[in-house]
Amino acid sequence: MMELEKIIESVKALDEAAITAAAKRQENLAKPPRSLGRLEDLSVQVAGITGKIYNRIEKKQLLVFSGDNGVVEENVSSAPQSVTLQQTVNLTRAKTGASVLAKHFGCRVTVVDMGVNADITEQKVVNCKIAYGTANIAKGPAMSREQAIRAIVTGAQFAMEADADILGIGEMGIGNTTTSSAVLAVLLDAEVEAVTGRGGGITDESFLKKKDVIRRAIEINSPDPEDIIEVISKVGGFDIAAMCGAFIGAAAARRPVVIDGFISAVAALCASKLCPQVTGYMIPSHASYELGYRLAMEAMGMEPMLLLGMRLGEGSGCPLAFEIVAAACAVLNDMATFDEAGIDDDYLEEIRVGDKFSVEDKR
Amino acid sequence: MMELEKIIESVKALDEAAITAAAKRQENLAKPPRSLGRLEDLSVQVAGITGKIYNRIEKKQLLVFSGDNGVVEENVSSAPQSVTLQQTVNLTRAKTGASVLAKHFGCRVTVVDMGVNADITEQKVVNCKIAYGTANIAKGPAMSREQAIRAIVTGAQFAMEADADILGIGEMGIGNTTTSSAVLAVLLDAEVEAVTGRGGGITDESFLKKKDVIRRAIEINSPDPEDIIEVISKVGGFDIAAMCGAFIGAAAARRPVVIDGFISAVAALCASKLCPQVTGYMIPSHASYELGYRLAMEAMGMEPMLLLGMRLGEGSGCPLAFEIVAAACAVLNDMATFDEAGIDDDYLEEIRVGDKFSVEDKR
Repeated sequence: MMELEKIIESVKALDEAAITAAAKRQENLAKPPRSLGRLEDLSVQVAGITGKIYNRIEKKQLLVFSGDNGVVEENVSSAPQSVTLQQTVNLTRAKTGASVLAKHFGCRVTVVDMGVNADITEQKVVNCKIAYGTANIAKGPAMSREQAIRAIVTGAQFAMEADADILGIGEMGIGNTTTSSAVLAVLLDAEVEAVTGRGGGITDESFLKKKDVIRRAIEINSPDPEDIIEVISKVGGFDIAAMCGAFIGAAAARRPVVIDGFISAVAALCASKLCPQVTGYMIPSHASYELGYRLAMEAMGMEPMLLLGMRLGEGSGCPLAFEIVAAACAVLNDMATFDEAGIDDDYLEEIRVGDKFSVEDKR
Repeated sequence: MMELEKIIESVKALDEAAITAAAKRQENLAKPPRSLGRLEDLSVQVAGITGKIYNRIEKKQLLVFSGDNGVVEENVSSAPQSVTLQQTVNLTRAKTGASVLAKHFGCRVTVVDMGVNADITEQKVVNCKIAYGTANIAKGPAMSREQAIRAIVTGAQFAMEADADILGIGEMGIGNTTTSSAVLAVLLDAEVEAVTGRGGGITDESFLKKKDVIRRAIEINSPDPEDIIEVISKVGGFDIAAMCGAFIGAAAARRPVVIDGFISAVAALCASKLCPQVTGYMIPSHASYELGYRLAMEAMGMEPMLLLGMRLGEGSGCPLAFEIVAAACAVLNDMATFDEAGIDDDYLEEIRVGDKFSVEDKR
């Protein structure tokens, strides 16, 4: 197994020369300045990631990490723990929300068992099980520090070894909005109330209990907010750990990597705190309906691109985001420049005036 | 030429039986209730539109209506009028923003000359020219009432005769954010200031002039806000008229139809006022950066799905929205139900409790 430090060290800054060249081409495309907005930004970001001006997003892959959470014994979830196993298997059969979307858009789905509380006979689920679920965070640490590091490195290796132009990071694990809220509350030093939502959809009573359980988990474990691995190992889960690693691994391999919803955003935040340069490789997808999502994204300075009111997880927001990124690259590759479009010099002069306005106006 | 009244009369309400059946299937899919948010709504809406529970969005088509606007002689635009001609032709060559996006996603593009101020030799541009541009709205009506009706009916016929599972409605016409703002100000009885943006990107001086021109156009023409055809003919354009018709025609042919940005939203609002049942057939796409877009959408009770800071026009937001709608239908078609997923009865019981919460929580 690789060392986590070596993986983190191998993450490099974005390629500034490619960024400059891609941005210059965007400026010369026959359209009012900034009129394709974030499609322009995405094409430039991908150039910085790959080091090439022209990119095609063809091989798309979803990495889904599954794990069970001991905290479900506190009755914080709407679904029984057995749903983790069932949906982990169903993910490989294009029967769940995310896997139907992935199949529809021609994305490969890799499902990794990081710690489901059952033996999985389905061969398509990759077995990297660290334990049969984590321990109950309301009573003590979820896992050992060594287990957390192992899960992070495992996630990183999947992202590094993938044969893909873009990756999306998802999860399956009943109870993981509880662990994600706990991790986020610690990382942001935020009130539990501000980062905790209803997950799969729980009753008022269960919702109060969920917040109480998160408060207890943080109090009992008192993780050091500066020590990300400690935070993950004490109040996180195997899924969050592996996802955090996958974001780092994607950056190490210079691959764009898409954040799904709440849990994915919390894992991305962990990754960006372990290795700030990873943030440049990340691309947001949809605005999760789950409370806490926005805070996690704001902490990374990111805004979602899709307003769909989704909160399913599994990486379900990634396939649509892949299409947006692919479209952004197509625009940079294939649109005519002003010269090619036969648009005259007077307009170019005006555009330059417009450009000055446009930059100011965006602030 | 068909009569407009007959086309409007042929628009029927959505199919309630298909809506009920599709919504019931969504409820039975193996996911927390409402966790796929607007993807669920879209699949149900498309069922209501086509009258079938299961739909596949395969044949996608962009209808782009081009026209010049006499008001450009007031210097309200950043680009010269010749850009309308150039980009109308470039649209057929997959060289503009929208046509690159359409090609990338396999959408057909139909470009219709409704009134470009030049003879177009490119055979791929469909010639339905009503005049060589409209008259200057700052001095009098843009066109006659008869011309407006002819443009609306022409747009409707393109949408009715299209061989497509979904349509998107775009435009090309220098000066058309000026005419759209004028139409919107009249329809909503809004201040010109509140509905006027910088279009392609104009200087502060041109921006003040643009708003002044719109005020003058409304004052001189004083269109009756209740008479939509009068509003379009007096302060609109051939593009807006044809787009308005295309929304109505799509509904008449029971086809989902996607709204692009500001100008498309204004045309959609005109259509929904001429024939309120058309609104049920419309699907929003991206949140245009152009001021006025949100007001037009709010007037129809719609919210955008894509947050990309775009303001290019040409129908550029539609190809991505087509992918969202196609994905929504794929989810309804292909996801496993709770029974198929092997998820047990206790969870189903809990889901029903969750469902009650979920409905309340959405308000």
